[in-house]
Amino acid sequence: MSFFPATLETLIDQFAALPGIGRKSAQRLAFHVLSLPESEALAFADAITAARRTVHCCRICQNLTEGDICPICASDRRDHSTICVVSEPRDVLSIERGHEYNGSYHVLHGALSPMSHVGPEDIRIKELIKRVAEEDVEEVIMATNPDTEGEATAMYISRLLKPFSVKVTRLAYGIPVGSNLEFADDATLNRALEGRTEM
Amino acid sequence: MSFFPATLETLIDQFAALPGIGRKSAQRLAFHVLSLPESEALAFADAITAARRTVHCCRICQNLTEGDICPICASDRRDHSTICVVSEPRDVLSIERGHEYNGSYHVLHGALSPMSHVGPEDIRIKELIKRVAEEDVEEVIMATNPDTEGEATAMYISRLLKPFSVKVTRLAYGIPVGSNLEFADDATLNRALEGRTEM
Repeated sequence: MSFFPATLETLIDQFAALPGIGRKSAQRLAFHVLSLPESEALAFADAITAARRTVHCCRICQNLTEGDICPICASDRRDHSTICVVSEPRDVLSIERGHEYNGSYHVLHGALSPMSHVGPEDIRIKELIKRVAEEDVEEVIMATNPDTEGEATAMYISRLLKPFSVKVTRLAYGIPVGSNLEFADDATLNRALEGRTEM
Repeated sequence: MSFFPATLETLIDQFAALPGIGRKSAQRLAFHVLSLPESEALAFADAITAARRTVHCCRICQNLTEGDICPICASDRRDHSTICVVSEPRDVLSIERGHEYNGSYHVLHGALSPMSHVGPEDIRIKELIKRVAEEDVEEVIMATNPDTEGEATAMYISRLLKPFSVKVTRLAYGIPVGSNLEFADDATLNRALEGRTEM
């Protein structure tokens, strides 16, 4: 039995349905929203509606955007002959933060995972193949996560790209900059040794 | 510089403004909302609007409710001569869960805290005094938290209630049921000794 008003219960349920938010946190968030000035609470509700309604995937690279084509795909300052393939929109942000990469992206929106029933048809692989087939692409950099799903996805896509005359590369493995050898795990250290470069 | 669409940034900002939600969690929540079917995302936005618009404080006990008077104050099965004073609406839920207490409540919406500039005028103390003065109240149970602010609030209110012929009590301190003496802190053990009862 609940002692909260029904609309408050509904709001708590909504917060509790978000990933990583438990029942107690959901209650805390709902009480916080009720304590906001009405204009701020409505601004929060509007932000959800606006984002869900206007944000969709770029026709070319599948990254999230408000227009038909995202700013990176539309830019003539970017090198569109290089495509960096990532799993999630947030990975684009991570790479852009480095200010090093100047090519375009392709966002898969997931990674192959037989355990979670995610197959090749569930992520944006065919859109990538179409780009490579139709556009003038020279290099595809596989920047999926260095975990089992990311590896499998990179491997699967690189095989699909074999028939095209395109260079397929993978992000380098190694010890993170600024870290300590003592705390590096064995697999990473072995990969760092294998991939050693001449000084 | 941001590489997310503006409406998505706004939504991330809104989530990040919630208590206990950092920037990374806010991003995760925003991406989750975008991945929901449109109807579910709109239901979330509506829940915020509806809760903020319809939920307000009960005219009598100040607990959150949708009507003029909350179900507990309106019930003729509850003993309205006993008032249990708590800091927050969630504390009502905690006590109701025990199915032991059958009186009414008074929610202060905070506790006295000079450090955070919360004085007697900022919480619902005068509404409580008015109830004791005008209604037929026999006992006021102080159930504020057993911390500095809660103690100070209980002490302050009990002094204000001195002029009225009303019994003022405080929740018992002691070792929690099912716990282990080994892990009880000194202050709690001392209070448990002081408050020992005859078997």
